[in-house]
Amino acid sequence: MALTQELGRFVANLTFEKLPAEAVEIARTGFIDTIATMIAGAHDEAPQLLRKGLQPPPGPASLYFSGETAAAPEAAWINGAAGHALDYDDVGCRGHVSTVLVPAIIAEAEMLGLGGREMFAAYVAGYQSWAELSRRDPGHHHRKGWHPTGIFGAIGAGAACANLRRLDPARATMAIALAASQAGGIMANFGTMTKPFHAGRAAHAGVVSARLAELGFTAAADALEHPQGFLSAVSPEGKADRDGPSPALGEEWHILKQGLSIKKYPACYCTHRALDGMLDLLAQRPLKASEIARITASISDTHALILRNHQPQTGLEGKFSMEFAMAAAVISRRASLGEYTDEFVRRPEVQDLMRRVTVVTNQNYDPVQVGASAYDQVTVELTNGERIESEKVRRARGHADLPLGEAELFDKFRACLDVGGARISPEALFGRLKTLENHSARELTAV
Amino acid sequence: MALTQELGRFVANLTFEKLPAEAVEIARTGFIDTIATMIAGAHDEAPQLLRKGLQPPPGPASLYFSGETAAAPEAAWINGAAGHALDYDDVGCRGHVSTVLVPAIIAEAEMLGLGGREMFAAYVAGYQSWAELSRRDPGHHHRKGWHPTGIFGAIGAGAACANLRRLDPARATMAIALAASQAGGIMANFGTMTKPFHAGRAAHAGVVSARLAELGFTAAADALEHPQGFLSAVSPEGKADRDGPSPALGEEWHILKQGLSIKKYPACYCTHRALDGMLDLLAQRPLKASEIARITASISDTHALILRNHQPQTGLEGKFSMEFAMAAAVISRRASLGEYTDEFVRRPEVQDLMRRVTVVTNQNYDPVQVGASAYDQVTVELTNGERIESEKVRRARGHADLPLGEAELFDKFRACLDVGGARISPEALFGRLKTLENHSARELTAV
Repeated sequence: MALTQELGRFVANLTFEKLPAEAVEIARTGFIDTIATMIAGAHDEAPQLLRKGLQPPPGPASLYFSGETAAAPEAAWINGAAGHALDYDDVGCRGHVSTVLVPAIIAEAEMLGLGGREMFAAYVAGYQSWAELSRRDPGHHHRKGWHPTGIFGAIGAGAACANLRRLDPARATMAIALAASQAGGIMANFGTMTKPFHAGRAAHAGVVSARLAELGFTAAADALEHPQGFLSAVSPEGKADRDGPSPALGEEWHILKQGLSIKKYPACYCTHRALDGMLDLLAQRPLKASEIARITASISDTHALILRNHQPQTGLEGKFSMEFAMAAAVISRRASLGEYTDEFVRRPEVQDLMRRVTVVTNQNYDPVQVGASAYDQVTVELTNGERIESEKVRRARGHADLPLGEAELFDKFRACLDVGGARISPEALFGRLKTLENHSARELTAV
Repeated sequence: MALTQELGRFVANLTFEKLPAEAVEIARTGFIDTIATMIAGAHDEAPQLLRKGLQPPPGPASLYFSGETAAAPEAAWINGAAGHALDYDDVGCRGHVSTVLVPAIIAEAEMLGLGGREMFAAYVAGYQSWAELSRRDPGHHHRKGWHPTGIFGAIGAGAACANLRRLDPARATMAIALAASQAGGIMANFGTMTKPFHAGRAAHAGVVSARLAELGFTAAADALEHPQGFLSAVSPEGKADRDGPSPALGEEWHILKQGLSIKKYPACYCTHRALDGMLDLLAQRPLKASEIARITASISDTHALILRNHQPQTGLEGKFSMEFAMAAAVISRRASLGEYTDEFVRRPEVQDLMRRVTVVTNQNYDPVQVGASAYDQVTVELTNGERIESEKVRRARGHADLPLGEAELFDKFRACLDVGGARISPEALFGRLKTLENHSARELTAV
């Protein structure tokens, strides 16, 4: 069976009972992490200006667990932008998978009166669809200019919402095909409010696509694999596998193989391995900025492209700057929400130390993490001539292969809820999420 | 100055007083033709299901001149889909330019209380931005899978709305850059409701982008020309000119050089030259289907790709079928709204004659009409062995180089308003459009 229809059938037939237990736990982590970052990011300018621009009247869906509400499509859009605003949300499927799926799913589940079991199934339907598409092309979408979160995200959210609405296979196929026509998002807009906008817009597209497909709106049943379809259109080098089989749809499970990576630092994931290396190095040898002649971070050339800001002036720009990440690590001995602020970025000693950071690039790509080098490494040269090398970091702390423990996950959750001024206690909300299969979406979002 | 900012400045500074008189007349034709096709297409399933799915409450903007209303972003979305639903709307800038720009402009102008002068300036701002982007890449976006109306349209609409809102150059640049992140639309969805959805969605993206930019939402000031920006992302072969000058922004005027092409037939423009050839041939020699052994239509291979339906079963599928176009021409001696219906397409003699139509392709591309052959031609072989050739048709009737007269334009206008059951007389509405510079948007849409 051809891909679009195969996905439609998979999405239509997936229920909570069919999910491996481990897939549910990965999805649960996705909900926990996204809700935390959504609450932390809610007061950011991106979701606030978006809300002001869209002017949604109150409706059946919650806005970032604040007690305020909107219609579900707008709630998905604004919440998706909030979840991605701090660039602190989880990583999977070559993009930011949960900050698209979770806001779309919660908003529609609130509207439809559904609960945790349906939400988990929808999440896995969306994740699997996204992962199946992203794995079919060996090309680097980032290099061509595409933000994977925007292009795959619209389709993943369409699949998730089609599952949530229990569309039949034909209509689920239409939802996916219509979502493919809403795939968009340009890398050049990284480091601006438009990056989190990509996540929200993809969530909105997914909600709209499933609603329209349910009503009988039509799209092409071969929209993904057609020679002028989605996979070809976004393909960096035209090498997408449009015709191959999809064994991981319900047999091997992408979500079990790839999992989710949770960010320890509120910045572009391309900085995380070097940050781990630098912070470990500093833990052993607590250097001061004045002792440092030069810091060299070795990363892949694709990651270097993404980290486009070399002398950032704002917290947002700093999230896409290896120079800033290294300077913050030395000066604060951490890289937390407190460092990614305009004030901290503009501190003279930070600006000064950034000038002593050099990024060197390689094409020694990791076979699994597309676009990443096999390892990242930091080297520090001291003013006294000494030279110190960090470990060769292959997986960031929090990566799916190196997961955070529950206590670490809760620490991040609590910090995010604190920053966001949550109206519900971290313990209470975390507790609901730990037993989400027994709650309705409305119980989840109640404040 | 780099492209995104150059466009932002152009868009911010363009006023009615700066428009060449001929540009105003081209824009006027765009408004006339789009409003006609929007009213004709209003009852089509695509805009009706879209309206049902979006559920917009009443608002300040009109829905397809029916007296019903919605918020401006939703009105632009639904009206854009209505205008493109019949594939009868005008052609320009390698796509369907007016069915994106006009709905976005009218909806926002109604909301903002603006009039014809501002609407004409906004139209030209949008057209020029779209044309400047589409001319910068020699590649065939259709072949890669991109629907130019969706990808360039979002940016064109963003530029138009930025002009309408009188944004300053910096904010107009942001509107354009944010719209670039909403560019989308896949060729494989041609012949389904998702094709007109592309036009509406692009109009909606334009409205939203300008509103957000006005509020201070940020995007990258190099989002178009950056190596990972819009032009690179959508480029079929990576040959986009990202750095060159833009002399046609206010000096040479794309809109004067390219103009608008008005469709005489409610079908994909790739069928029009062959239809002209066939109908002329039939006017001289009124053949019956029973006399015909074979019809051969010679077109470019790009156009053949777009005309993907070889034995269509619905009116919508028939719009993307050269086989159907030829059969309809022979059987009805015309190709009007009455032929592009499920009932007509399914007539046994139509289905039968379609099997005798062959499409032959060439790569003899026209230097100006990207993707079109230098000319299209139809050859008919009779059962008696005779062989008749049509003219070699280089420009369809209604093409910018071969424009319709006012009477022909009004004939189409009247036919569209009749089909759509317009609540205003064709004469009255045409009269308002002929003097649009003296009317407000609200006077224009009043029924």
